[in-house]
Amino acid sequence: MDKVYVISEHAETYHRLLHNATLPELTVVDRPDQATIWLADPPLAAPQLCYGDQLRWLQSTFAGIDALINAPYRHYQLTNVRGIFGDLMAEYVFGYLLNETRHITQYADQQAQRLWQPHDYTSVRGKTLAILGTGAIGQHIATVAHAFGMHVLGTNQDGRAVEGFEHTMTLTALRQRLSEVDVLVSTLPATTETARCVNADFWQYAKDLLFINVGRGATVDESALIKALDEKKLRLAVLDVMQQEPLPQAHPFWVHPRVHITPHIAAVSFPEQVFDLFADNYRRWHAGKPLAHQVNFNKGY
Amino acid sequence: MDKVYVISEHAETYHRLLHNATLPELTVVDRPDQATIWLADPPLAAPQLCYGDQLRWLQSTFAGIDALINAPYRHYQLTNVRGIFGDLMAEYVFGYLLNETRHITQYADQQAQRLWQPHDYTSVRGKTLAILGTGAIGQHIATVAHAFGMHVLGTNQDGRAVEGFEHTMTLTALRQRLSEVDVLVSTLPATTETARCVNADFWQYAKDLLFINVGRGATVDESALIKALDEKKLRLAVLDVMQQEPLPQAHPFWVHPRVHITPHIAAVSFPEQVFDLFADNYRRWHAGKPLAHQVNFNKGY
Repeated sequence: MDKVYVISEHAETYHRLLHNATLPELTVVDRPDQATIWLADPPLAAPQLCYGDQLRWLQSTFAGIDALINAPYRHYQLTNVRGIFGDLMAEYVFGYLLNETRHITQYADQQAQRLWQPHDYTSVRGKTLAILGTGAIGQHIATVAHAFGMHVLGTNQDGRAVEGFEHTMTLTALRQRLSEVDVLVSTLPATTETARCVNADFWQYAKDLLFINVGRGATVDESALIKALDEKKLRLAVLDVMQQEPLPQAHPFWVHPRVHITPHIAAVSFPEQVFDLFADNYRRWHAGKPLAHQVNFNKGY
Repeated sequence: MDKVYVISEHAETYHRLLHNATLPELTVVDRPDQATIWLADPPLAAPQLCYGDQLRWLQSTFAGIDALINAPYRHYQLTNVRGIFGDLMAEYVFGYLLNETRHITQYADQQAQRLWQPHDYTSVRGKTLAILGTGAIGQHIATVAHAFGMHVLGTNQDGRAVEGFEHTMTLTALRQRLSEVDVLVSTLPATTETARCVNADFWQYAKDLLFINVGRGATVDESALIKALDEKKLRLAVLDVMQQEPLPQAHPFWVHPRVHITPHIAAVSFPEQVFDLFADNYRRWHAGKPLAHQVNFNKGY
């Protein structure tokens, strides 16, 4: 008999789903120290890991598990959620990209002034989109980019080819070609290797580029980003993630005319989708099979 | 030897392109009464057709040729431009759709207030998009909709199946199913049959629907549209085309909180693309072959 402990913003929903799902030989408990399995939001779970003596498997309700990676406990199997964020991430990326290229905000302002004034624009067809990270999210964004007729480059650690990307390369190699890139999307997780990898050096060859960060704020040197904007290497930065969230009130991003910030909403874990992944994984666990979406603590993803 | 007359907002560009293209046995003339071929913006050409005794072929620089259809001259072969608008139309449709579903304007307002406040949303995946018109533009929008995981319905005159649409039907049949539709996009041309076909009857079964018109304003009963918005049959109308353009200053669309208007910019004819189609058609003409994109005056498209 396994015992599961839920710690999440959506705990109530998960308890209801657990109640209705009747997973075999699984009891719900309300104390972390009794549970062998946790279904948990990483930022809420991390400070409770000290009570996790019995913990053998933690199913993260998020894709981003850096709060757990950074905690001093690695005695359990960690799994995260994957494959359910691609749609939402692509919607965010193309929503903001098209908002910019098609002057949507500008036309709304003109409507308020009863002003009928067309503006020139160009299609995204034929433009080059580079995606940092060729995982499930990057692949999904690439698919939609192709439907819009864009060229798609991707980066990963060894530059290996990945289906759906015309060219893949390392981040260092992309840096040299950044003048060819019109739109850059980062899906990078926060790891030791990605920390502030999007820095002043990285922007050296960028020209009038639109940058969208749906990965992690820790991957970006924020002062260098503002400098790159001010030097016109970037025309616009759309940031769903920042070094510190919520963004501090005094942070220059709030008022920069060419920074759009959103409160970490590019993709959210809908509890129903997360629970489906958990239920599937629990059946594997119960059958003694390997879990899906295992995280390697050393790699950080 | 043929003589071509250019009448267009972009006449200067077309003259340069004609000069550089060196099409066989074609001279550029600056008077309509001398020309056998016109390369023309329909609203500018229509009032000059009375000087078109020599006119044998008119290549429209627009897709929409209603200004010529409504003129009392049909002694010439009319061709329009097709196949170059799908990309831009799809960008417009998904730009406005995602702007709405992903609260882009709302987050911009919050940024101005330094407010970090997430809002619930749902994906467009699994939602139903219906497209009035299954021509090249409708098909292109359908392709992009599929990349976003949407279900796609389409209408045409006889309800015949068209690749890329899960179901096709007549406009009358769609009307009965409008409660199933989340997003409705019209690509309809202005013809006798489509005049105010999007009217009070049409909206009867609509529920909280997002309507985007990238076709022609003449297809919409504008008073009925406002009524449908006020009755919550529609949640939002995004209109690139209206009965009268520019929209009159006193028109209620300017100030309706759930109407977004744009100054007929969903797709524009980039002169270089139009000229490529003209040059191709001229070579057919010169070789005595049938022209591409012929318009039937009786059908109106």
